[in-house]
Amino acid sequence: MNKNVPLTTLERFPDYLNYLRELNCAENEKIASGAIAQALGLGEVLVRKDLAYTSCVGKPRVGYVVCDLIAALERVLGCENKRNAVIVGAGGLGRALLSYGGFIKYGIDVVAAFDNDLDKCKTDVGGKPVLHIDELNEGIKKFNAELAVICVPTSAAQNICDKLVKSGIKGILTFAPVNLKVDESITVRYVDLAANLAILNSLM
Amino acid sequence: MNKNVPLTTLERFPDYLNYLRELNCAENEKIASGAIAQALGLGEVLVRKDLAYTSCVGKPRVGYVVCDLIAALERVLGCENKRNAVIVGAGGLGRALLSYGGFIKYGIDVVAAFDNDLDKCKTDVGGKPVLHIDELNEGIKKFNAELAVICVPTSAAQNICDKLVKSGIKGILTFAPVNLKVDESITVRYVDLAANLAILNSLM
Repeated sequence: MNKNVPLTTLERFPDYLNYLRELNCAENEKIASGAIAQALGLGEVLVRKDLAYTSCVGKPRVGYVVCDLIAALERVLGCENKRNAVIVGAGGLGRALLSYGGFIKYGIDVVAAFDNDLDKCKTDVGGKPVLHIDELNEGIKKFNAELAVICVPTSAAQNICDKLVKSGIKGILTFAPVNLKVDESITVRYVDLAANLAILNSLM
Repeated sequence: MNKNVPLTTLERFPDYLNYLRELNCAENEKIASGAIAQALGLGEVLVRKDLAYTSCVGKPRVGYVVCDLIAALERVLGCENKRNAVIVGAGGLGRALLSYGGFIKYGIDVVAAFDNDLDKCKTDVGGKPVLHIDELNEGIKKFNAELAVICVPTSAAQNICDKLVKSGIKGILTFAPVNLKVDESITVRYVDLAANLAILNSLM
């Protein structure tokens, strides 16, 4: 959808969006690229280049209309196209994500989790069901889910990934630190929590 | 420590390390850059450029000695300098991280969590204590922690960040989607879980 936006730019868009939303601006209030740059600790030229990938045009010496810029960023990030996501693996992380309310502001509704442990399937989390992994295919269709988050141990990740793709999932976010083999029509994004702490450590 | 390694390269190092470790190679076994590239879905030239930032030198038509490359990557990632980390915020995510075993392979020991909810402080998680936030300063010194992970709600993140810095923390990983204001001597790394799902969504 946004293959013309460089990934590094796209990865900064949520930061811009979070910052602008928190300003709670009035309808016609404006903001200069310099102010955005300073608040986010970025260079002003970079901010202008990034925002040029949205449909919102800033005016010299005036800046961007904040509401318009928010709408433009939301459009690029697909916040308007509501999509459903499921979580596979209802351990600590999976359950934390299932009850986390922060996805909906990007138009993503995390609707259910799946696990192979029947004990974990007994209780809802934040009002959302934890279903048995055997119901994965059926559940994905029932919930009309297009996105999935893999929170299973590394050794099970590829198997789960294959099942998700077979069930029609088009986008996968995985926390398992292993490279998944998928058809190139499937979009995969990796978040390695331990690696993030290690990178922080090595930057100190 | 690794300010000469480009961040994008550094961010790929855990992927190389995970892949090479899983090969379970014998002492003198070698691997070509092309094989690494193919396994990780990267370009071969990129792989060679990345690995040139380590102390391990590959030989033309032979490749890298796997064990040496692992050791070199571990050195850059600081796996040998064991560091302690604390978690602030013992909700779902904080507790999941406290019991997660994946940090130790990078030399990072997550030793305790802190929370302002006395009920959450009653039980250990994975054998690790959850202490009251009032004990933060004392706890950080006692555990000799240099790293901290912020898992509190966004509205509390800056306040916690200030407390961490006052207690001597030098590196902060934060899951709160807000830009933290810190002295530039402090290293901060952001992981926005909702944004990651949004970016995935917008790439589909």
